Amino acid sequence: MEKVALITGLALLQFIYFGFRVGMARGKYRIKAPETTGHDVFERIYRVHYNTMEQLIVFLPALWGFAWYIDVDWAFWSGLVFVVARGYYAFSYTRNPDSRGPAVMVSSLVMWGLLIGAFYGAASLYLQSIA
Amino acid sequence: MEKVALITGLALLQFIYFGFRVGMARGKYRIKAPETTGHDVFERIYRVHYNTMEQLIVFLPALWGFAWYIDVDWAFWSGLVFVVARGYYAFSYTRNPDSRGPAVMVSSLVMWGLLIGAFYGAASLYLQSIA
Amino acid sequence: MEKVALITGLALLQFIYFGFRVGMARGKYRIKAPETTGHDVFERIYRVHYNTMEQLIVFLPALWGFAWYIDVDWAFWSGLVFVVARGYYAFSYTRNPDSRGPAVMVSSLVMWGLLIGAFYGAASLYLQSIA
Repeated sequence: MEKVALITGLALLQFIYFGFRVGMARGKYRIKAPETTGHDVFERIYRVHYNTMEQLIVFLPALWGFAWYIDVDWAFWSGLVFVVARGYYAFSYTRNPDSRGPAVMVSSLVMWGLLIGAFYGAASLYLQSIA
Repeated sequence: MEKVALITGLALLQFIYFGFRVGMARGKYRIKAPETTGHDVFERIYRVHYNTMEQLIVFLPALWGFAWYIDVDWAFWSGLVFVVARGYYAFSYTRNPDSRGPAVMVSSLVMWGLLIGAFYGAASLYLQSIA
Repeated sequence: MEKVALITGLALLQFIYFGFRVGMARGKYRIKAPETTGHDVFERIYRVHYNTMEQLIVFLPALWGFAWYIDVDWAFWSGLVFVVARGYYAFSYTRNPDSRGPAVMVSSLVMWGLLIGAFYGAASLYLQSIA
């Protein structure tokens, strides 16, 4: 499972980096805490961070569940695609929110795939155990 | 522990569904990203998603801790009540924010119960180990 | 690992308490759901809760990864420092947002240290396994 821990670490380091961007943007666009609005580019950078948190809360349990019940290598490579798609999401959303679609789609598909796989694996094992 | 994994999957599928509702409401009420305000019903749907994320970050570790240190079956049924209460929360909040109280109360009580149980179980085991 | 479960419980109880403060502040400053702005002090209390969620999503996996791959006792004491720093963060941010720097720095350093340690531990074990 070390490979899954490494993907978890990568995804969290990326999330921390997205948080740094929010801090930097606070300075650049003079958005003083506790405010979170006031400049369009700041709001995009803020949403990149927030939306990635939303996905992580599903992605991380799904990743580990998939690795545990189905396959570690598939979890690893899917997780890598997720992190790359999130990187491109940050880039495309910041440039133009309307162009974020493809990156959202890729990371969401990976997330759903991992979740459904994990769910299926756990359900199979459970049904076997009561059969 | 497969039963706990199934509850985790259910809760995350529900959370994804709440996220879809936000996307749909963006279209319906013409709230363009990165904005998150502008129409009262959109804001309710957005808050349902956000507030569920707040609860999941406590619920998931509490659920697994309770199952691990106390009892898997109790964790399973409590988790099911949590998911149903969250569903009713989404329904009642969207119709009228003032009516969200009972659903918040039920899912919060389950969450606290699981957390306190898990904490108690871990503390007992720890005290035993150093006795 | 019970000591790590206890720190997890403490951090989540603190997070629940920060959520209570938001509910109380809703009443005091008359911010009706689904709104999240309208009074500066409410917004500070709201941001304390939100920002703690952002940190928990990194802190919890990092804490467990560090305890698993490196050392349980270091994880325990680092986690305790994190929770205390978050408590001081809530206090200082609510009084004056500009004074939140030191508390943010301490909890962030602990979080990064745990994450980097966990990542290093998992990477070492993985490289050993393929050597």
